[in-house]
Amino acid sequence: MNWLDEINWNEDGLVPAIAQDHQSGRVLMMAWMNRESLGLTVQENRAIYWSRSRGRLWRKGEESGHVQKLHELRLDCDADVIILMVEQLGGIACHTGRESCFYRLYRDGGWQTVDAVIKDPHAIYKEHTHE
Amino acid sequence: MNWLDEINWNEDGLVPAIAQDHQSGRVLMMAWMNRESLGLTVQENRAIYWSRSRGRLWRKGEESGHVQKLHELRLDCDADVIILMVEQLGGIACHTGRESCFYRLYRDGGWQTVDAVIKDPHAIYKEHTHE
Repeated sequence: MNWLDEINWNEDGLVPAIAQDHQSGRVLMMAWMNRESLGLTVQENRAIYWSRSRGRLWRKGEESGHVQKLHELRLDCDADVIILMVEQLGGIACHTGRESCFYRLYRDGGWQTVDAVIKDPHAIYKEHTHE
Repeated sequence: MNWLDEINWNEDGLVPAIAQDHQSGRVLMMAWMNRESLGLTVQENRAIYWSRSRGRLWRKGEESGHVQKLHELRLDCDADVIILMVEQLGGIACHTGRESCFYRLYRDGGWQTVDAVIKDPHAIYKEHTHE
């Protein structure tokens, strides 16, 4: 059986993909993949997601240069979530110019931004989008 | 505004929740939370998920004793994914008796089980379920 057939794609044909820094272990982001994007991720050895908002393949870093090089790919027990251990080029995964998308911490009844912006998003993207 | 109102719940009123070991950084599992379960997670300082298969709250460790004590809670840029930094009691998060649910590694065109079972699931659960 093809390894892609073993995945329990959801009703939209997608699976959540968690990208984690292969050295520090920091979770950088979570996005979605369909069958084609996961196949291409392995083929091209870089994270390629399915952008639900734009309805097209999203080669992470295609505009920003912040490519995620694939080091390791894992599947969970229910075969419905994957982890990508990646090398994050540029050290920035988030469209806000931060290392990780998870820069807000719950504290005292609210979400507090605790991580610094490394690079101004306007200097990363021609237009301010998620790439 | 209430901190729970800032979350972009999906069409089913859920959000993916990634549980990560607060010391090693290992991703242990991904499950889902609704508004009630996330509120209770903070209130009780332990991971409480929403079980989609059983349609009820799932106090992680309710049967197994493998409670996840909450150390830190983070929200991503789109406010539609959360991370729980947890202390995993018993050192086992997966219903297969492994530390992490992500015990399968992609290698040579297939998924290979690379992590050992720490404890026989039959010794963990009265019935072999996800708790």
